[in-house]
Amino acid sequence: MTEMNKQWLLKSRPTGEPTSDNFELVETPIPVPGEGEFVMKTIYMSLDPYMRGRMNESKSYSASAEIGEPMLGSGVAVVTKSNNAAFKEGDYVMGMTKWQAYSVSDGAGIMKLDPKAAPISTAVGVLGMPGLTAYVGLLDFGQPKEGETVVVAAASGAVGSVVGQVAKIKGARAIGIAGSADKCAYVEKELGFDICLNYKEPDFIEKLQAACPDGIDVYYENVGGDVFDAVLPLLNDFARIPLCGRIANYNMVGNPEGPNMLPAFFGDMLIKRMTLKGFIISDHYDRLPEFLREMGSWIGSGQIKYKEDIVQGIENAPEAFMGLLKGKNFGKLLVQVSEDPTRG
Amino acid sequence: MTEMNKQWLLKSRPTGEPTSDNFELVETPIPVPGEGEFVMKTIYMSLDPYMRGRMNESKSYSASAEIGEPMLGSGVAVVTKSNNAAFKEGDYVMGMTKWQAYSVSDGAGIMKLDPKAAPISTAVGVLGMPGLTAYVGLLDFGQPKEGETVVVAAASGAVGSVVGQVAKIKGARAIGIAGSADKCAYVEKELGFDICLNYKEPDFIEKLQAACPDGIDVYYENVGGDVFDAVLPLLNDFARIPLCGRIANYNMVGNPEGPNMLPAFFGDMLIKRMTLKGFIISDHYDRLPEFLREMGSWIGSGQIKYKEDIVQGIENAPEAFMGLLKGKNFGKLLVQVSEDPTRG
Repeated sequence: MTEMNKQWLLKSRPTGEPTSDNFELVETPIPVPGEGEFVMKTIYMSLDPYMRGRMNESKSYSASAEIGEPMLGSGVAVVTKSNNAAFKEGDYVMGMTKWQAYSVSDGAGIMKLDPKAAPISTAVGVLGMPGLTAYVGLLDFGQPKEGETVVVAAASGAVGSVVGQVAKIKGARAIGIAGSADKCAYVEKELGFDICLNYKEPDFIEKLQAACPDGIDVYYENVGGDVFDAVLPLLNDFARIPLCGRIANYNMVGNPEGPNMLPAFFGDMLIKRMTLKGFIISDHYDRLPEFLREMGSWIGSGQIKYKEDIVQGIENAPEAFMGLLKGKNFGKLLVQVSEDPTRG
Repeated sequence: MTEMNKQWLLKSRPTGEPTSDNFELVETPIPVPGEGEFVMKTIYMSLDPYMRGRMNESKSYSASAEIGEPMLGSGVAVVTKSNNAAFKEGDYVMGMTKWQAYSVSDGAGIMKLDPKAAPISTAVGVLGMPGLTAYVGLLDFGQPKEGETVVVAAASGAVGSVVGQVAKIKGARAIGIAGSADKCAYVEKELGFDICLNYKEPDFIEKLQAACPDGIDVYYENVGGDVFDAVLPLLNDFARIPLCGRIANYNMVGNPEGPNMLPAFFGDMLIKRMTLKGFIISDHYDRLPEFLREMGSWIGSGQIKYKEDIVQGIENAPEAFMGLLKGKNFGKLLVQVSEDPTRG
């Protein structure tokens, strides 16, 4: 029996939260490389909140997936066949492998990995876009000073966990916010944040106040929604708000309900002389070399820890992704599509 | 008959828009200078939107006026009696003279003026805090590049008029927004903005779109309210929003009504990678020397023009101030409290 490719296609565009009806699994022949091309066998598929935006037809900051085409996304793969001298059979690579077991490429946007330097899975996590997003957002836009207080939500996730740990390295206090007692325990005990609070607890707002007796100097905004409402009154003069993503609002349809906070927010922005800075990591790839050097050394020295949440089997990708948008993952979410020969 | 001091006291704190009941005019003896002190006779009293905030008890970015005490504010004055070697009788000065005909000072925060260098009234206008607010907000935080589009509201006012003219000097397009056809004509013909639009016209939003075919790169936010709603959809990727004051919301009481724009605004901030920067000019006095040098030369060369709206008589200060909050002034609003001996 011939081995087939497995692909998750975008079947229909979701309204609000995605459901399993929006995805379709198909089997197709494994692609054959043309001249200068090579075939990649996916090992790890990365699942990230931004992918929800790519399911929309409406303008997002990244290209939309087309109906009937594979879901977009990056992953870690091994080259299995090659007509390209730069990518040899057995090479490990990272790039836009999409939601599929096999993909073909001419090498554009594909990065080779050294499995001896770091586990290959980290290329889509702590040493990949999530790590870079945390690094650039915190250091370039958050600019925490020694003794300042940094707050980040989704603190056990791929981005938040790095934000807090880098804040600690820079001498700031790190306050995390997460969605369960288990996650909070991990963030405090393993990652070394000063405090981590469960936003689902009824006295969350009071606990956040108590955790920030000197107010908040940097709020790394990566969730939106209710957490921001709790943070806003605690922000200090000259606070910085790097804004990199808003999981809580990705599923938003039409005009959300709730109090009109914009005028009050602008008033606070002025009175407290705050800076709100939206950014998208693809504008900041020039920071990649320094990031890889510095983050690599922090991981090597144990100053930065990371956790992976690996779901087995490409069949389970949509369910894992829908869980991600609800905060069900615990650590950087990956789907293992094929065996990782580098892992002992 | 002995000449008396006239003082406008804060009688009560306004709820929403101030009314004449909030102010009380009293006559008191002219103060006598103690050791190291001097008496200043107010010539021009400056009226500025920020003063509305100082009437509140609630936290604003500047000290509140106390009930029964003179309204706070700066002005231009002449020294009439002095026990301070640094300030001689006949010296012209600028400083916190409050809403009164005479004040006493030990010199703290008082700046001497050279009436030969520029008309003394400009020390609270184009060469004073409003001019510096425009200069720092536009150049340091707006950072307009040649060919970019800069939009500013209250374009005939003390701040907005300078913002647009400096934008033009830097090679950007300047689009003004104002509240009457007269003001718009002045902004286009006298100040040299590319276009000025009357926000009270029913097709204002369409006209703003037409005036900004390449979108908006810098929105200098100094009014808030409906104007911002019209600007937001036109903002370009990497747009900068210096936020220096919000006349439209100074009178706001409690929770304003209207659509909940905060989540949508955050979405735009992220997708367009915009920067919103609240600032208060007193944090940026280090820019004063360069500002005075550069702005002085622009005024001297005729590249920057300014207009003053001078109300005669301290008795008319509250009415003029209430009109200012409604946009009734046309140019930098001053109250002439006594004769200006330097004006021909």
